Amino acid sequence: MAQPNLELTINSERLRADFDALAEIGATMGGGVSRLALSNEDLAARSWFADRIEEAGLLVKDDEVGNLSGVLSSDDADAKTLMMGSHLDTVPNGGRYDGAIGVLIALECLRRVKEAGIKPKSHLEAINFTDEEGTWKSLLGSNGVIGKISADDISDSIHANGAFRAALFRAGIQPAEIYRARRDPETILGYLEVHIEQGKRLHECGHELGIVDWIVGRTTYDVTFFGEAAHAGTTTAEERRDALQGAAAFIISAHKLITQEFPRGVVNCGHVSAKPESYNVVPSEASLRMEFRHPEADTLQDMEARLIRLTQDCARDYRLSVGTQRVLHREPEQMSPEFVREFERACRAANVRCMSVASYSGHNAQIMNQMAPAGMIFLPSVDGISHNPKEYTEWRHVEIGANVLLRTVLQLTA
Amino acid sequence: MAQPNLELTINSERLRADFDALAEIGATMGGGVSRLALSNEDLAARSWFADRIEEAGLLVKDDEVGNLSGVLSSDDADAKTLMMGSHLDTVPNGGRYDGAIGVLIALECLRRVKEAGIKPKSHLEAINFTDEEGTWKSLLGSNGVIGKISADDISDSIHANGAFRAALFRAGIQPAEIYRARRDPETILGYLEVHIEQGKRLHECGHELGIVDWIVGRTTYDVTFFGEAAHAGTTTAEERRDALQGAAAFIISAHKLITQEFPRGVVNCGHVSAKPESYNVVPSEASLRMEFRHPEADTLQDMEARLIRLTQDCARDYRLSVGTQRVLHREPEQMSPEFVREFERACRAANVRCMSVASYSGHNAQIMNQMAPAGMIFLPSVDGISHNPKEYTEWRHVEIGANVLLRTVLQLTA
Repeated sequence: MAQPNLELTINSERLRADFDALAEIGATMGGGVSRLALSNEDLAARSWFADRIEEAGLLVKDDEVGNLSGVLSSDDADAKTLMMGSHLDTVPNGGRYDGAIGVLIALECLRRVKEAGIKPKSHLEAINFTDEEGTWKSLLGSNGVIGKISADDISDSIHANGAFRAALFRAGIQPAEIYRARRDPETILGYLEVHIEQGKRLHECGHELGIVDWIVGRTTYDVTFFGEAAHAGTTTAEERRDALQGAAAFIISAHKLITQEFPRGVVNCGHVSAKPESYNVVPSEASLRMEFRHPEADTLQDMEARLIRLTQDCARDYRLSVGTQRVLHREPEQMSPEFVREFERACRAANVRCMSVASYSGHNAQIMNQMAPAGMIFLPSVDGISHNPKEYTEWRHVEIGANVLLRTVLQLTA
Repeated sequence: MAQPNLELTINSERLRADFDALAEIGATMGGGVSRLALSNEDLAARSWFADRIEEAGLLVKDDEVGNLSGVLSSDDADAKTLMMGSHLDTVPNGGRYDGAIGVLIALECLRRVKEAGIKPKSHLEAINFTDEEGTWKSLLGSNGVIGKISADDISDSIHANGAFRAALFRAGIQPAEIYRARRDPETILGYLEVHIEQGKRLHECGHELGIVDWIVGRTTYDVTFFGEAAHAGTTTAEERRDALQGAAAFIISAHKLITQEFPRGVVNCGHVSAKPESYNVVPSEASLRMEFRHPEADTLQDMEARLIRLTQDCARDYRLSVGTQRVLHREPEQMSPEFVREFERACRAANVRCMSVASYSGHNAQIMNQMAPAGMIFLPSVDGISHNPKEYTEWRHVEIGANVLLRTVLQLTA
């Protein structure tokens, strides 16, 4: 049997044409993209992706949680499947690379293997996972694949007014059927993902590619401070039980705490809302959602305890009461050492300057890692900008990452 | 001619029945009231008020800005009009007394004068002013009466999406006709208002009634901090330009500044909003509305300058830029010394324990004061609670206030 051609490379112009066409779907002013999960733009992107799969002569597959795949079958029907991909959905007015580049690179790899007449020992599957960004439920699609989403998870979601269910129905997803999306782990060889770093390390160190060793754990809390509505003009400072002041103090203190005591941790509060939201009423209620991350499980737990205590301190300082509810928790995930070695081997063979990195953002790879070996490589993000229209990766780095993935896939399955 | 009967008193049971019936309109769970200006509940309350006016055999009058009045005409058609009243609209889930008690007391005074067969030397008018609370535009109705509202004020309002115009049309108000609501100052003898104090001074001092000498000036600003959207997980603290942190720091600092350096001033921030409002994106924009008050014009101006400087300090501390826009300004208003004397005379004659007070909330009286002499008396608020369902005034204080108003009206016009 002929040696597999590990020197096979991707078709860069074709990948570029895909990238530009996809960036038009949900394009915003200022060069960004809004393809919120389950929105018209998201559905249009999936439809476009399905067309590209068919065009390439690959098998179109979708599942009961809206994940969409192109498959290049092995001659061995009982073979396992090597999955690769990312997500087409975005944050509001996000960048063009986040998620999209990984889906397109995966598809391009399958196209090249097929064009080269290579018969892979495993089925190859290029997949787009639903709602990675959490417009509705973070990493919904990959959680469905590992069997962690039930109809109750949909009903119990924060979108309790039924909007989530309605959006799923519009996208052709039946909550009661989502459990069927679960794959048998025995059939999965592994999962590989290419993604932009969304941080500055590769860019600043001058490396061309990052091999992910750990994906951070993440915890999300809803925090609500309760005070007392009162007249804004006639209530003295000593009498006020101003919930918004408590929330504001907490936001400032939480950031200080993490910066000072948890240098490898991060915290974010993206949103505050107050009631009754009247300019002339002292706010009786203020709610915020905070999320915090750390690559070490024990330290992540410490951060949680300290932040909860901080909510109580701020409540006491402003004569408020406070309620906290943990809404999400994910343990840190270690990427498959075997896949790390395969990526390193591919980088050496192609003379790619690579380094080990931890991922500070959540990815489908950390979910798939719970079912089968998962591996991830990062492309440099210029100035680390992401979740922003100015997100940018040099095309030569896209080519390098795509070729490393292709080589790794061939190392594993050719 | 017979001496006017200054000992005439109000019909307390009838006033109580009015109060209870009105409290049902827009009643919320927990005993509060929501009759937001121009809402269905507000229109229902006006309709109810019009019915009470007709029932009493008084003339129903409305004007082009939605103010609704009952009139007891003098025999002298050329007589001036002594106006009295308040507002039926409320804040969201507010109390039953705020504004409503003043309208009902005014109506009851007209009813008693008519029943007693007294022929007033001035026309007497019991008026409900539109949108005192500023759901759409603070003190809209009284500003219309003094000729300070134009169609442009409606178009330029913060509700630039047309919602304000739509609400006006639903209430039968044409923006282009609002200017007609202006009264000729020569026809107005003065304006008297009874209102709950919404503060604690009367309650704590054990006085039965307050005679208002000054109404505070008030300034309102929109403040927007601008940062940069970025990935919540991968952006380090040093790199963040988090607009919500800037806004939070400003809220805390503004309250500290006022408490420490402007003891007779107050500041409130009832509302913050952040963009893009995504849990995993560092907020690029955060907007808040703040209002601040002081009884002295110069000091109010100082507060403004200091708070603007504070927005710049907070912006600098968090590497943000900030924009501020003044959206409202009202000078402090001194109540008519003549009316203060008449109120004092009425209190002495009726043995009412009264004191002078400044008003820390805005009222229709401060607007009417720009056109004709205005006077205001306060009823004690238990624990100073207002803008809250727990707002409460003892009924004996309502009776006392109503009788002082009636006596004062008779002193002026009988």
